[in-house]
Order: sequence, then structure tokens, then C-alpha cells
Amino acid sequence: MIKAGIVGGTGYTGVELLRILCGHPHVEIRAVTSRSDAGVKVSDLYPNLRGKIDVQFKPPEVEILAGCDVVFFATPNGTCMRMARELLGLGVKIIDLAADFRLHDPSEWETWYGEPHACPELLQESVYGLTEVNRSAIREARLVACPGCYPTAVQLGFLPLIEVKAVSLSSLIADVKSGISGAGRKAQLTSLMAESGESLKAYSVSGHRHLPEILQGLSGFSNEKIGLTFVPHLIPMIRGIHATLYARLTSTEVDFQALFEKHYRNELFVDVLPPGSHPDTRNVKGSNRCQIAVHRPRQSDTVVVLVVIDNLVKGAAGQAVQNMNLMYQFEESTGLEQVGLYP
Amino acid sequence: MIKAGIVGGTGYTGVELLRILCGHPHVEIRAVTSRSDAGVKVSDLYPNLRGKIDVQFKPPEVEILAGCDVVFFATPNGTCMRMARELLGLGVKIIDLAADFRLHDPSEWETWYGEPHACPELLQESVYGLTEVNRSAIREARLVACPGCYPTAVQLGFLPLIEVKAVSLSSLIADVKSGISGAGRKAQLTSLMAESGESLKAYSVSGHRHLPEILQGLSGFSNEKIGLTFVPHLIPMIRGIHATLYARLTSTEVDFQALFEKHYRNELFVDVLPPGSHPDTRNVKGSNRCQIAVHRPRQSDTVVVLVVIDNLVKGAAGQAVQNMNLMYQFEESTGLEQVGLYP
Amino acid sequence: MIKAGIVGGTGYTGVELLRILCGHPHVEIRAVTSRSDAGVKVSDLYPNLRGKIDVQFKPPEVEILAGCDVVFFATPNGTCMRMARELLGLGVKIIDLAADFRLHDPSEWETWYGEPHACPELLQESVYGLTEVNRSAIREARLVACPGCYPTAVQLGFLPLIEVKAVSLSSLIADVKSGISGAGRKAQLTSLMAESGESLKAYSVSGHRHLPEILQGLSGFSNEKIGLTFVPHLIPMIRGIHATLYARLTSTEVDFQALFEKHYRNELFVDVLPPGSHPDTRNVKGSNRCQIAVHRPRQSDTVVVLVVIDNLVKGAAGQAVQNMNLMYQFEESTGLEQVGLYP
Amino acid sequence: MIKAGIVGGTGYTGVELLRILCGHPHVEIRAVTSRSDAGVKVSDLYPNLRGKIDVQFKPPEVEILAGCDVVFFATPNGTCMRMARELLGLGVKIIDLAADFRLHDPSEWETWYGEPHACPELLQESVYGLTEVNRSAIREARLVACPGCYPTAVQLGFLPLIEVKAVSLSSLIADVKSGISGAGRKAQLTSLMAESGESLKAYSVSGHRHLPEILQGLSGFSNEKIGLTFVPHLIPMIRGIHATLYARLTSTEVDFQALFEKHYRNELFVDVLPPGSHPDTRNVKGSNRCQIAVHRPRQSDTVVVLVVIDNLVKGAAGQAVQNMNLMYQFEESTGLEQVGLYP
Repeated sequence: MIKAGIVGGTGYTGVELLRILCGHPHVEIRAVTSRSDAGVKVSDLYPNLRGKIDVQFKPPEVEILAGCDVVFFATPNGTCMRMARELLGLGVKIIDLAADFRLHDPSEWETWYGEPHACPELLQESVYGLTEVNRSAIREARLVACPGCYPTAVQLGFLPLIEVKAVSLSSLIADVKSGISGAGRKAQLTSLMAESGESLKAYSVSGHRHLPEILQGLSGFSNEKIGLTFVPHLIPMIRGIHATLYARLTSTEVDFQALFEKHYRNELFVDVLPPGSHPDTRNVKGSNRCQIAVHRPRQSDTVVVLVVIDNLVKGAAGQAVQNMNLMYQFEESTGLEQVGLYP
Repeated sequence: MIKAGIVGGTGYTGVELLRILCGHPHVEIRAVTSRSDAGVKVSDLYPNLRGKIDVQFKPPEVEILAGCDVVFFATPNGTCMRMARELLGLGVKIIDLAADFRLHDPSEWETWYGEPHACPELLQESVYGLTEVNRSAIREARLVACPGCYPTAVQLGFLPLIEVKAVSLSSLIADVKSGISGAGRKAQLTSLMAESGESLKAYSVSGHRHLPEILQGLSGFSNEKIGLTFVPHLIPMIRGIHATLYARLTSTEVDFQALFEKHYRNELFVDVLPPGSHPDTRNVKGSNRCQIAVHRPRQSDTVVVLVVIDNLVKGAAGQAVQNMNLMYQFEESTGLEQVGLYP
Repeated sequence: MIKAGIVGGTGYTGVELLRILCGHPHVEIRAVTSRSDAGVKVSDLYPNLRGKIDVQFKPPEVEILAGCDVVFFATPNGTCMRMARELLGLGVKIIDLAADFRLHDPSEWETWYGEPHACPELLQESVYGLTEVNRSAIREARLVACPGCYPTAVQLGFLPLIEVKAVSLSSLIADVKSGISGAGRKAQLTSLMAESGESLKAYSVSGHRHLPEILQGLSGFSNEKIGLTFVPHLIPMIRGIHATLYARLTSTEVDFQALFEKHYRNELFVDVLPPGSHPDTRNVKGSNRCQIAVHRPRQSDTVVVLVVIDNLVKGAAGQAVQNMNLMYQFEESTGLEQVGLYP
Repeated sequence: MIKAGIVGGTGYTGVELLRILCGHPHVEIRAVTSRSDAGVKVSDLYPNLRGKIDVQFKPPEVEILAGCDVVFFATPNGTCMRMARELLGLGVKIIDLAADFRLHDPSEWETWYGEPHACPELLQESVYGLTEVNRSAIREARLVACPGCYPTAVQLGFLPLIEVKAVSLSSLIADVKSGISGAGRKAQLTSLMAESGESLKAYSVSGHRHLPEILQGLSGFSNEKIGLTFVPHLIPMIRGIHATLYARLTSTEVDFQALFEKHYRNELFVDVLPPGSHPDTRNVKGSNRCQIAVHRPRQSDTVVVLVVIDNLVKGAAGQAVQNMNLMYQFEESTGLEQVGLYP
């Protein structure tokens, strides 16, 4: 039984961590912190957890977290990098769900996140927590930087193509659609149901913070420079990401279906669908599963990859627990067996 | 380990049974039948179940079901009453999620369901599966008739009031709102997203089939005749029922909050909320929980009870499994620990 | 051609006024004010209005509004009562869409709105703008207080019953369901799509501000004291109100269908549906129409009235324009001919 | 005043035609046909039209339509091509909203629609009704083939780029998202709210019927062969199309914003948004407007064009009326002034 803490437990990734961890047989939730809601019972804010978790939010202080084996940061960007050094020094392992330790290059961080990095000396040590790619490093890590939701879907879909060098890397396109929970539990006009319901829009077309993260990840698999156009869209649903990926073929000899099936044949949480499939995001709602389908449209020199995940599970809290399981030598799927909610 | 069969596995209560049972440690799913989809893999129709259940739909024949310990009927009304006798004769227990064995009086069945009852001799033996009410009879039953989704919510909300005789029984009102999955997985115009999305309507105001079931249930607790106006509404969401119940006070001495808390204090799946609460149906999405709040509006002689359930779980498949657990002396909550999906 | 101003043009009732008025042949929109967005082009905030209206938001100052013939207040409660005296003094007519002048009794205002009324001397002059009830007074009015969205639906549904004295007035029940736009364009957590989408809840069961307004309105038609239980619900859709009204019969002789048809036979915007109808809120989406159906459930001593309106049109901006048409002797339906958007 | 008929008035494009035409000052709706609903009042099926249109559905027979000046076909594919010859022979003009006369090449029709074309001799005469492209031919036409919803959005977005030859035509990508009303008013499982709500999927990735239509249209503007990958997606909303278009630059000298503004500067229904805009489909809900934004993502050799329309208006019924206005020398915008419904 390990003792876990959650910093920033009032957001959607926080409550999702609680939902998953309260059913995890080897984890005791020791502390859940929230600056704004300190003193409030967790189950008063999240009535779905009544009877499942009986703790109050506490202020996000190191003393409170010091007794934990592992601390999850389900916080806005910029929080973990200010507490990581001290917690690691106390022997606490860290799994960050925010962006603080995803980019290796502190100047990239500063460019995209608008402030100098507060803890650049840990950037090299931190392990990028895309489980299917970095499994062995994650097992040994003290500090895991979980990927963003978009980067998880986009990388899992592009990686087999890049590995086999069958597509042009200079003009990849990722047209990605996300449910509104990806915008977080923030009181902002654009996330109102009357604004985002029954409507659809692209955003950040000129450049989104997940772009450098994806480029860094994909470049790790290739010696060529990657050119990627990444356009995120806000979809009138609560959960789910659908990535539609486009790449121009450089070889027409490749059996893409076989390529993907082989690449992910041992992965419990990446499910390559039969030829001709079009996955619904619903298939994986509430589940840690990623489903992928690969298509060759008629008369086209382009391969199309469809990827679905639940942005709050495989795109955030689920992958974080998957990584925790590796870090503590638990079965990788422990606590993550939930089936997608259909309908 | 018991062997379970599901008749009519292609509907929403069928797939929900599969979702719950595939995580149940004491159940092996032996057969899933569907006349229309016989030969199809279950996980081809329901891709959320890929990797979780590896069976094909089979035709709904007695020989196929004979090897089961228990058979769930997740069928349209009128199916179970035609197979029940034979299956019981083979020693198979039956849990019917349809209406066939809910009403004790076969003439009531004929009035509301439009055909004579095919198996009236089992109506007295069958046990009405509102778990919180009939727990001991369910333990001994061969044939359990699970309540409808509306009757589950309405009865759980009214029962404490009726027991204590604090309200007028002649003019109860149940204004009930249901998500669209309650209409089933049927290709019909009224269930299209373009028809039922972004809109709201009442239906069957002149009389709905769940009315006699509710009246029968409530009458069992009272010697007075019950007068109930029951108006169901179709809500533009997929899962969830919210019952808003109104009853006129005959006594102003009653502490309703205490009454409800006491009534349900030992119930794992009925959660009486603190005073002043307004439960969201989201609180129980995907969960077997029922949440109840009780209110005394200002200057009013009326008590208002708010009840939420997931129509497919506590209102159907979850309660069916809860009853199965009792019938086989499993822990009542086995396989039903899932937390509501938030958001 | 009259000159109209809109105070508080950035909310949903404000943009709805603009949508309606920019197609009104006798109205020129002279000024649209917003404290927070002064200087911004209206069509930048509301891109649906691009090419239709070419003005900027201005600060809400009397000098700017002084040149208008009529000023609409689409503001939070408490704004109009602070500007009304001065504007009326300048000869500007006022149509208030907020609550400031709805209640005749200033102490009721203080009880429900939490501050003393700033302009009690105009409460008697102000005319309650439920058009179908107060048509002749509205024609002569300088100051019209448009009803709230709930009170519009509830009063139009109950009035024929009260007039004919066929129901018990001591225990009326109004179970009312509203789309989320009724909560306004405010950055608040409860209105987020991830919070209010795919879920349903009651709110303010202990007492909602629209209760005294409805009681005042209904009492005007009766010499008996009215007892009303009013429970509003938040529905996962953007527009629309559905009121389900319950009243116990004191006479079984009344032909309710005929009663309603007769009562509203000359009303262009109140449409009594054929017997057995269940109106969808969709029927009136974007339209100024109110649709009503009346039912006598089987074996019940209760009459059930179903009422649908678009909360932003007949429940707010449309009714305001309907009143303006009366005040300026335009055809009552001018600018209000739009058909409900289906689907 | 011209007399119009509508064949197939029970689908969503049919009711949308009725909504628009019942407010058109120069059109009298003479006949609305439906084989399945003949004898039913139009306003019984579509209660939003109560009081607006007082006709019954009639059987789809030539005698009934012969008295019309113009007949709209809002039918499934394959209907108009069987009636066109006879109606034209009677002097009736035809505006087809289905696919029958969109493709010039009858063998292409057979390939994509699965049967030989029933009226190939009219394929050359028919005018493709993308108004902004074929305005003068439409004015003279007897037979107009209105574009599909996807082809309208995709062509309006790509045309300025193709005209100026600034992008590579061999690998265009159109990632297009549509609301569920695009699937029509058909009782099919995939269109149920419980199936299509709160979820998202691509479909027909291997090849969609709108592909040859788009290719034919774009090729008309270029001497090069066009290579296009077209992936449609089903979005959990009712109305709206969002096309996200990608093209690789062959010149970096082009000012795309100026190009688009110039191209559409005289178009009433194509609105080029300011630089940096991300149009919501909501902006044009219920309106005949198309809104376009053009972007150059950072560090990318790709131009991204965002296009929104209402699939039932500019993508179907609205564009049909726009064409009718041209054919009868009415002001092009007559009956089409409606503002998008916000929110």
C-alpha cells in the first residue's frame, strides 16, 4: 500500500485521479490539496465521490505532502516546477500532469509558457510519461512528466509511421478534436454551455502549446526535421479526443494495418481496430484505452490515422496512474480496468 | 463462479449488463443472445467491450441458455413470459429487466401491454426486485422482476413518506425527467439526436405503463388508496433520471431530513444528501447509486423530494446485478463499486 | 421610425434584442451600451450580427440614451431602477427586461433581491408586461416591466384555470424546466458545459425569486389566496422553457380544451395545441410563440398543463418587442414573425 | 408572386425550405408532397409551422406539381432524375437539392450512387448551383443542381487559393465536421441521440460521395489535376458544418487575407473574417451566411482555411432559395435575411 497525494484536486484531472485511485487496491489517498477549497470535504465538491473518499481539501503545503510516497500534480502549469525540488529532496516521487517538465529545453518553455522555467536543472532527469514509449525509464523515474492530452493521441497515432519511415515528415497534419472538459474547470465565458454547446470551432491555429511537445516527441524517433501543422478544435461534448492524422506516403509498399497491429501488439491500452473501422470517442469514455484505425483513402497518396482517447483518462489521470503502477512495480493495468461507458 | 446468460444483449440494458458483469469476479458470461445479430461478435457491436468479452451473439434458444445458472432478460416486454416456464423447469434462475412479471394482476398487464399475459401462473411467485424493499424475498427467489427505471426512482423517493403517513396519499405528483437512453436502442424518429437533442418534452401524460407498477408498489405500503399523477419527460441527455416528487403535508411535525436519513441509513446504494442539496443526475452516471434530497419550500404545505439515478444502472442493469448478488449470497455490492463519471 | 437604445447589450437578452430589432422595419438602433465592453464593435462580440449592425458598445450614460425614444434594459437586476427616473424625465420610454419594476410592493423586492428598492415611487406606474394580460395598459405605458421567463410560461398556463375557478388554488404546482441560457452570459462554474451538459438538476427549491412575481400575477385574477409550489430545473440545452403545471380539480364538468382554446383564440403568440399534444420546446426555438397543451390524466383528479416558450424570446426579448409594438401603435407582430428553428 | 412546389417535404431540407419560403414575399407554396405522409397536415408534422402554412402533404405526382412555376426536390438521391424530364416539359423549373444532377459524367454517378443515371441527357444542361461561382448561368437555368453541404463549404474555402495558384494542388486536405442533421430525418441507429450524442467519429474515410463533386468543382478552376483527401466527421450537434482546409504553399509571397477579402468583397453571403478569427458554427445557425477565416500557422508551410456554414441553409435550403431568387430576378437576399441564432 503506497500513500498518494494530489495537489490541485479541484480540477477535472484531479477528480478523475480520485475516481481512479479510490478503486486502486494498492493506494491510500493521504492528502488532497486545494488552495481555494481548503477545509471543504472532497465529496461536497464532487458528490459522485460520497462514501468513497472521506478527506478534506488541505492547503498545498510541503509538510502536508511530505508523508506521501508519490504526489500527483493536477495543477495549472507552473505549480509543480516550484515544489518539485523540495519534494524530491524529501524522497517523494512526483507525477506531474501539467506541462512543467514536458519540454527538455527551458527556452522552449519560456517561449510557449511566458515565464522563465523555475527548475531547469530537473528537466533532464524528468521522464516523459508516454507509457508505451518510455516504459523502462518510467519504471526508474523519480519525476514523470505526463504528456498532454493532444500529444498523447497525436504521438500514438504517428509513431508507427515515423518508425518505419514510410511517410514524408515535412508536412504532417494533425486535425484534432477535443471535448470541452479539456478546457478545465475554470469559470470562463468560452466554456459556458450556451457558448460551446451546439457549436464547433477551431482555436489557436497560429500555434498551440502542445505543438512543441509533439514535435519534441516525434523528433525523438527520427533524424529528419518534422514539419507539423496542428489544429485543435473544441467539440460540443464533455469528454473525448479524436485525432485525425494525415501523412503523405513516400512508399506505397507498406501494409499499414499490419504495421500498426505489430507495433502495438503487446500494448494493453492501445487497441488497433480492424481495417475499415471508424472509432467513436464514446468507445473509450471513462476508460484508459486508446483506439486506432488506419486508412488509405481511394486515389489518394495520403494515409489517414484515426485515434481516440478519453482526454481525462489516457490523456491525463489514467496515464498518470499507469505510470505510477510502473514506478511501484504494480501490474500496469491495476485500477485501470474500467470499460468505456456505452452509451 | 456462476454462469450467466443474457437474452437480448444488443440493447442498452444488455450492453450495460455486459459492462458490469465483465468486471464481476464471480460471474462467467456463458451466452449472450440476439435474434438479429446472431453470429456477430459482441465487441464488434460494442467496441467499448473489445478485449473484455470474447463471445458472439447466439440465437435466443433454450438449449443455449440451459447451461446457465442465471439468465437475465434485457429484452422488449413480452419475451421473458414466453421462455420463463421452460427455463425455470431446467433449474435456471431468471432476472427479468422487462415488465413481464412486475404486475401481479394479469388483467392489469393486458390493459397496459395490449395482449393477454402468456404466463400468469408465475406472477405470484415472481419477486419484485426493488432491492431495498424486498431484500429477503429476493434472496430466495427463482424469478425476479426488476422494476422499471421510473418506478425505481419514484418509489425510493415516496416510500419513507408513505411509511410515516405524513402526507396526503390522494394527490401525489411525480414529475420525472429521463435521458434518451430510456427509449432504448431502437431506430425511431423520436429518438434521433436532431429530434430529441436541444429540446424537451413531456410524453404519455394521459397514462404511462409505469403508472400501475408504481401504484402497486406504493399501495403495498399503505392501506389507503393512492392517487398519483405521473408525468414523464424526455430530456436531451443520454443517461439519468431525475424524479421531482410532490406530496401535501398532513402533519407539519415531521423532520423529513431525519426521516429519510433513518430510513436509508443501512443502504449502500441509497444516499440521502445533506439538507438543502440539489442532486445532479451526473453524480450517479455509470454508478448504481441513488441520491435523494428532501425539501420543504417556503410558505408551502408541500414536501418536495428530489431523486436521481442512472436509468441504465440502478434503474436497470445495476439493480439486476444487485439482485443477482443477493440470490447467490455474494456481497451485495460486488461488481457495483463504480464511481459516477464526473464530469 | 423610432430610435431605440439597449442598456446591457452584452448578455443573451441583449443580443436577442439586437437580433430581433435589426430586422424590425420601424426601429433604428441608436445606442447599445455596455460598461465592460465600451469601444468594442457589437459584431466583434456577436459575429452572428456582422453586416447587420454597425455600432460600438458605449458606456451606459444618460446623455447617450437621451436621444432615444425607447430604451430597453437588458441588464442585471438593480440597474434600471437607478436610471429610470432620469430617463423618463427626459421623455424616454423604458422597457425593463430585468426584475426592477415587476413587484408592486417594495418590501417584497427587498426580501427577494436583498437591497432596498431605489425607485419605489415608480412601482405603481410601471405596467407589468405580460402582453396577453395587460395589453391596453401597455399601450399607454411609459415604463413597462417585462415578466421573467418562468413567470411568463407559468402564468399563461394557469390563467385560464384560475379565471374559470375550476381548480383548487391552495396547492398549485409548477415544475418548470429551463435551458442554460436562462442563467445568463456569466462566467460561473455551474454554467460550464462540463458541469451542466449531460446532466439535470433542480435548484432553488426552497424559494426562487420568480415565485413572488408569479403569485402577484395569479392573485390579480382571483380573490382567493394562491398556494404555489414552484420548482425550477436546469436542463442540458441552450434555449427553451417547459412548464409542467398541476392543479387539482374542483369541478369535473369543465371542458379544459375548449376553455383554453376560447381564452387564447385571438392571441397571435399563444397557440393552444390539439388534444393529446405534447409540445417540444424546439417548436418555438427562436420564435415569440407560446404553445400550450392541456391534459386530464387517467384516473386522476388533476389537470396537467404543458407550456413551452423560448426563454430568450417570448420569455424576454420577443415579449419586450411585442410590448414596444403596442406602445408605438405598430402591428403587434412586427419583427416577430420568425418561425421556430427545426431541427 | 411565383408558385412553388416542394417534393419530399418531410425531411430536414424540406422543412427548412418551408421555414424560409413561408417568409418569402414573392412565393406562394402551392404543393408539398410526401409519399409516406400524404394527407397529413404539414404543421402536424412540423409544429413550428403552425399558423404559418396551412397545407397537407400530397402524393408526389406530376399533375399536382404541374401548376407550379418552380419545384424544389428535397428528396433522397435518385428521385429528381426520374421526374425532371416531364416537369421541364411542362414548363416547370427545377431546383434539385439532392445529388442527381451535380456530376456531369453519368459513369461517375453510377460509380458513386450505385445505379445507372436515369436522365443523362439533362446532365449537360443542368447548372451547378454554387451561387457565388455560377451566378449568371443560374439566372438562365431551367434545372439547377444545388451543391451538397460539404462541397459548398469546401469549395468556397479552396477557390481563392486555386484561382491564384499559390498552393500545391496535388495534396489538398479537407477535414470536415458536420452536425447530425446532415444525416437526414431517417430512423437509423447511428443517428440516435444515444449513439451520436456526446461522441465524435470520422466516417467514409475510404471515399465519400461528395468527393467527386468537390473534385469536379475545383478542377473547373484549374488546369492541374487535383488531389484531395476528404474526411467527414459526425459531430454531436444538430446544425452546422466546419471545414478545416489544409494546402501546402508554393509561394510565400501571397497575402492570403487580402486574397480572400478581395475574392468575396461583393458577396452578401460569404463573410471573410478579420485576421486571427476562429469562426463558430453558431455564428451562422439558421442563417444563409458562410464565414471564412484564413491562417498561416507558425513555422509551417501550410495555409489553413476555416469555413462555417449551416448545412441546412447555405448548405441546402438557403442556397436553393438564393438560386431561385436569381432565376426569377428577385433581389438575391430576399427571404434570406435571417440572423444566426445566438446562443
